[in-house]
Amino acid sequence: MASETQRVESFSDGVFAIAITLLVLELKVPPAGNSQLSTLLIRQWPSYVAFLASFAFIGIMWINHHRLFTHIRRSDHVLLVLNLLLLLGVITVPFPTAVLAENLGQPGERTATLLYSGTYVVIAIAFNVLWRYATSRNRRLLGPDVDATAVRQIGVQYSFGPLFYLVCFALAWVSVPASLVLNVVLACFFALPPAYLRRPSA
Amino acid sequence: MASETQRVESFSDGVFAIAITLLVLELKVPPAGNSQLSTLLIRQWPSYVAFLASFAFIGIMWINHHRLFTHIRRSDHVLLVLNLLLLLGVITVPFPTAVLAENLGQPGERTATLLYSGTYVVIAIAFNVLWRYATSRNRRLLGPDVDATAVRQIGVQYSFGPLFYLVCFALAWVSVPASLVLNVVLACFFALPPAYLRRPSA
Amino acid sequence: MASETQRVESFSDGVFAIAITLLVLELKVPPAGNSQLSTLLIRQWPSYVAFLASFAFIGIMWINHHRLFTHIRRSDHVLLVLNLLLLLGVITVPFPTAVLAENLGQPGERTATLLYSGTYVVIAIAFNVLWRYATSRNRRLLGPDVDATAVRQIGVQYSFGPLFYLVCFALAWVSVPASLVLNVVLACFFALPPAYLRRPSA
Amino acid sequence: MASETQRVESFSDGVFAIAITLLVLELKVPPAGNSQLSTLLIRQWPSYVAFLASFAFIGIMWINHHRLFTHIRRSDHVLLVLNLLLLLGVITVPFPTAVLAENLGQPGERTATLLYSGTYVVIAIAFNVLWRYATSRNRRLLGPDVDATAVRQIGVQYSFGPLFYLVCFALAWVSVPASLVLNVVLACFFALPPAYLRRPSA
Repeated sequence: MASETQRVESFSDGVFAIAITLLVLELKVPPAGNSQLSTLLIRQWPSYVAFLASFAFIGIMWINHHRLFTHIRRSDHVLLVLNLLLLLGVITVPFPTAVLAENLGQPGERTATLLYSGTYVVIAIAFNVLWRYATSRNRRLLGPDVDATAVRQIGVQYSFGPLFYLVCFALAWVSVPASLVLNVVLACFFALPPAYLRRPSA
Repeated sequence: MASETQRVESFSDGVFAIAITLLVLELKVPPAGNSQLSTLLIRQWPSYVAFLASFAFIGIMWINHHRLFTHIRRSDHVLLVLNLLLLLGVITVPFPTAVLAENLGQPGERTATLLYSGTYVVIAIAFNVLWRYATSRNRRLLGPDVDATAVRQIGVQYSFGPLFYLVCFALAWVSVPASLVLNVVLACFFALPPAYLRRPSA
Repeated sequence: MASETQRVESFSDGVFAIAITLLVLELKVPPAGNSQLSTLLIRQWPSYVAFLASFAFIGIMWINHHRLFTHIRRSDHVLLVLNLLLLLGVITVPFPTAVLAENLGQPGERTATLLYSGTYVVIAIAFNVLWRYATSRNRRLLGPDVDATAVRQIGVQYSFGPLFYLVCFALAWVSVPASLVLNVVLACFFALPPAYLRRPSA
Repeated sequence: MASETQRVESFSDGVFAIAITLLVLELKVPPAGNSQLSTLLIRQWPSYVAFLASFAFIGIMWINHHRLFTHIRRSDHVLLVLNLLLLLGVITVPFPTAVLAENLGQPGERTATLLYSGTYVVIAIAFNVLWRYATSRNRRLLGPDVDATAVRQIGVQYSFGPLFYLVCFALAWVSVPASLVLNVVLACFFALPPAYLRRPSA
């Protein structure tokens, strides 16, 4: 029955939708009556960057969650708990992002970058654990018509996550900009569809 | 299978629902114990106008999104990304609306109107790109029983969007009220159902 | 096809769910370190009453919306617009409720009660218009297996709404407490299932 | 028809999703430009504990709600009302949690613990009433293929709830830490799947 995971997906969709929409609350309206409104708006650029970055990261996580659950067709108690841990990571994202936006170019930028990268290490681990649980023991939670190549390719792509985000985390001790650039590169990597989705027939 | 786009729709519904409901947070309760409560409430009229306008605009965008996805029956990676870009526009709406409400009749009203119209230029482009992607290459993401007239009429209606919102944007340099009036006219235009929905049989 | 209204329902569910959950933001945590915490908590009773009242009212509206859409099986452009107008009323509820909670026992309580009752007049009209549209012209949007008794009983119950809420509104000029008591009585009336749902077989 | 409860579940999912996501708003970003950012972040530990605790408790309640509705297949007016009462408890959780986080180690900690435990007494009663209503009178709202063992085991597990949370509540008069520890133990107890879900075949 394909609908066994429907409620897990609809609850998760709700959490993703709210987390991504709450981001707009971080955009502050400058005080009225100022003749230099455009200057005031432009001066807020770090909060726009934080807004767009958080939007992109949560959006990419939603696409990945969506992709996993096109393969996961059955649900059990452990999956519910692992999914909750993943969602815990997702809803936390705006906090380290705001800390980072506030402290870039300030004395606390190293600490903020560590917090930021650390969050993604945890999320990458949560994605891996959920996918490994669903696909282990003879693919216990996958549908009968699952594409074995897809499952393997997703597994390979995800196994890079924790390791590379850990490199990001370590890099923050050496160079904050390098760590952030690698973070963006990694986001792009997970935004890309795995190879099986790039075949012409898909 | 009709349900392939179900999760895209349910995630989008969540985002639209939250964006439209968060608008009420902009209505401020006047301080208590004042004998002139009605005067205080009436003096807040710009925030009511901004509230109603944002509600109408997001509501119209939801109706349009809903209409597109009655035709779109299949989903792929690019559609997910294009849909996220569209939702980015939707959740941003409260910000330029609040900036406009704060600055109407103030020195910054031109800048605020440019920001406001600019947001709708971007949203109109996002709607067009999504619809063109879904319907191009032999209508790749549409259902087999799709109504060719409907697809064409939606395409025609949408192709006016970016152009006319760009006129709105340019008009703000000449006259702020003219730009805002045209904006409302355009919203009404997209609130109207396309011709195929006005046939008696529909 | 029963699923034609599915997305209208899921969007509406999202709006109801958010409107009802945002209410908790109105409960303020008293400042820490005070030895009279219980006194501080008890002194906030008006905000608890406003919270519970808004919760009950939005909950009752959700039950009514849910009931209507067990009968409405088809959707068209006008229904989408009427449903949006109804949702506009729903998401507005926390605002007049907060104004009322702030001003009870203060000089502005009459104005606040008028605003509060006026909101429910509008919502009652919106419910009526939506239901009349769906059931008129040979029950155009209902399912083929619809229960004619149910449709008639809902119509009768709803036709009382705008009239009685208008009485509430007028009563506020004479006596604020009387108006509020009638408001609660009316809420209970709409919380009751219509007669067809109280038959043993249902 | 399995979909009779679908809208109850999707509305409830929305409420749970929003309640759990709003928790992140309680994490405050320390003021920028401070060289001791890590100290400031660490000093906020009570708000992280409150965040994680609320997340875990709402998550566990969602899993339980989900489990109940895998058995409940039909819906009626009373179920809608009982479900709303349960959701009232769920959305209230952040308030007593914040009061507790603010007052731990302060003079008001006993009052805060009583409020906190009291909330869970009410929620435990709401879960029991809903489940008993659904399963009484010849299991009126369950599906025809329901697992009698599962129904009985859930009933047994839930019957412990109100009693033990009442012990928690009473314990707060004697010892605040003991009450909070028992609270966590109880949460773990309800996080565990009932016995029928731990059988190898499940």
